[in-house]
Amino acid sequence: MGTNSKTIKCKAAVAWEAGKPLSIEEVEVAPPKAHEVRIQIIATALCHTDAHIINPKFKEVLFPVIPGHEGAGIVESVGPGVTAFKPGDKVIPLYTPQCKKCKFCLSPLTNLCQKLSRVKNPIIDQELMEDKTSRFTCKGKPVYHFMGTSTFSQYTVVSDINLAKVDDDANLKKVCLIGCGFSTGYGAAINTAKVTPGSTCAIFGLGGVGLSALIGCKVAGASRIIAIDINSEKFTRAKALGATDCLNPRDLDKPIQAVIIEMTNGGVDFALDCAGGSETMKAALDCTIAGGGSCTLIGVAIGDKGLTISPVELIMGRTINGTFFGGWKSIDSVPKLVTDYKNKKFNLDALITDTLPFDKIHEAFDLMYQGKSIRTVLTF
Amino acid sequence: MGTNSKTIKCKAAVAWEAGKPLSIEEVEVAPPKAHEVRIQIIATALCHTDAHIINPKFKEVLFPVIPGHEGAGIVESVGPGVTAFKPGDKVIPLYTPQCKKCKFCLSPLTNLCQKLSRVKNPIIDQELMEDKTSRFTCKGKPVYHFMGTSTFSQYTVVSDINLAKVDDDANLKKVCLIGCGFSTGYGAAINTAKVTPGSTCAIFGLGGVGLSALIGCKVAGASRIIAIDINSEKFTRAKALGATDCLNPRDLDKPIQAVIIEMTNGGVDFALDCAGGSETMKAALDCTIAGGGSCTLIGVAIGDKGLTISPVELIMGRTINGTFFGGWKSIDSVPKLVTDYKNKKFNLDALITDTLPFDKIHEAFDLMYQGKSIRTVLTF
Repeated sequence: MGTNSKTIKCKAAVAWEAGKPLSIEEVEVAPPKAHEVRIQIIATALCHTDAHIINPKFKEVLFPVIPGHEGAGIVESVGPGVTAFKPGDKVIPLYTPQCKKCKFCLSPLTNLCQKLSRVKNPIIDQELMEDKTSRFTCKGKPVYHFMGTSTFSQYTVVSDINLAKVDDDANLKKVCLIGCGFSTGYGAAINTAKVTPGSTCAIFGLGGVGLSALIGCKVAGASRIIAIDINSEKFTRAKALGATDCLNPRDLDKPIQAVIIEMTNGGVDFALDCAGGSETMKAALDCTIAGGGSCTLIGVAIGDKGLTISPVELIMGRTINGTFFGGWKSIDSVPKLVTDYKNKKFNLDALITDTLPFDKIHEAFDLMYQGKSIRTVLTF
Repeated sequence: MGTNSKTIKCKAAVAWEAGKPLSIEEVEVAPPKAHEVRIQIIATALCHTDAHIINPKFKEVLFPVIPGHEGAGIVESVGPGVTAFKPGDKVIPLYTPQCKKCKFCLSPLTNLCQKLSRVKNPIIDQELMEDKTSRFTCKGKPVYHFMGTSTFSQYTVVSDINLAKVDDDANLKKVCLIGCGFSTGYGAAINTAKVTPGSTCAIFGLGGVGLSALIGCKVAGASRIIAIDINSEKFTRAKALGATDCLNPRDLDKPIQAVIIEMTNGGVDFALDCAGGSETMKAALDCTIAGGGSCTLIGVAIGDKGLTISPVELIMGRTINGTFFGGWKSIDSVPKLVTDYKNKKFNLDALITDTLPFDKIHEAFDLMYQGKSIRTVLTF
């Protein structure tokens, strides 16, 4: 542990400003302070949120910043007061902290934590450590953290309430997906929608989150799962994971919601929107059945005009809710999800379409933008 | 029961066309056919829905029609096949049927019934009896039923799945409110929002439904109930029923939601919107707390542009739902609510501001339009 208490120089992908590609740089990563942990990232996937923040429409990001929030690694060193982690532990950084002390953490109703002080938009929270400074510098300038994780760096520093210890034999190149996309979609079905056995589900958007929601519906015992995407190339994988019907709205001569309502004699019990656009959210709500239908919002499209609803749609017995990190209390749940994967309760491998060295991060972004990948895992 | 099997001539308030006041007429009420019950209405209250349907903005109503859906009466005669009712029974007509056979009635998730075939808007359902004819005529013309009840007539005919038998000693001039407004607001809090002991609630709109929701929050054990109306004259009554704080948005120099968020250190657990306008619904959603806040929509404003939401508001752990007849399975629940009133579980009398003879129905509408009444009960 010769690096302990010293600054580490390593590779990271830095976003210097909005609208520009990330730049691979040598950065300095300071040692962890009190209640902080420095981690060697072994693998990190990328997710649309990492792309959102460099989208000029997304106004509130502080630059320069090191993105990345779906990673896994090994503890390199710990700061004073850290008792739950030691060097060598396998870990998953968590953008959803769990302090276990605040009113949110003590409530069974939510997995938010008071540390997300700006709960209106947690994507732009946790840019600095608790002492209001950064542990990253690059070319002499401080660089902001991203969502408390910044996994696009070979080494990162996180708060000990933003970290889960996982099994020693966990395959970090797979379970990194539990850091965001898998847990969000799977938990949306299991914890937020609370999909019931024998129910009918519709999933809008078959990216990593959507396919994970599909896995969740299947594990929850749904008997019919309608998978929807405007890219029909996603359907083979969706069927392999349990979709009973696949629909491409662009191939239909009626609105997608009308087709689903016909197919299901009135609508689905659960709709999960993993796309986030106005039209998709509207279709998801519309295709739920009156008298108990539930629509869960998971995706957020940047710059979108939102979902407009008539109260009558809800008065007729529909519910709309949303999920953040799939409703999982992070430190409590992530280790269990890692164990569930090991025990083959669900299949993460099907979500990983590509594994590339970290230096090929631009190729990974291109695969995502082009809809060719589900998840690309980058390895250091 | 000399009227049995004969047509009865009696007094009713007929809406001949949109935008015109109701007209008190002599109407003919045919005897009940199979599975129908003819009722002598003793008392009927009026509600905004009765006003909505004569609003020219509300396009789909069939005229002429006899409105009224919040009444109570005595069975005059029954048609073939009716087993649950006999002449002399005290009853409350139900615009929410309960056939006890359809998929909705068999589901614990909803109080809708398949008989509401156009579940997109039940206010415009049940204009005719099951055989697609009306039991009302006036001046030689058939007159439509309204919501399967038409309580603005001294005699009316309803389906036996649209009727609840209540205690023989029920005070019909009070319990008529259980036919709509009271049950809707009270059930919204108890059944739909599922208000919890010790919780914080906000109620937007302090008419009959809003005050009933307030009663529901109080009975459910809410520790803080913030009552909101643009008419401060409603506050004395709201306080008497259990409101801990009363706010008039017109007296504030900040948006109502900002004031509530400040007062409650982050927002309320439960918001109930009994007004239905875009701004009020938005305020109700906004003032709920992240991580578990729930917003229940009860009111519908005719011609309104609806509620626009950002998915982020829901992703941060909020739920929106809506209530129809307070979520009560009608035939099962209405008799119990009547008994609960007798046993003083709640106070209906506080909601009745005026009792007038039926002939003064225009005066009753004026009191409602002017916000001077909570509920006016009309008696024949």
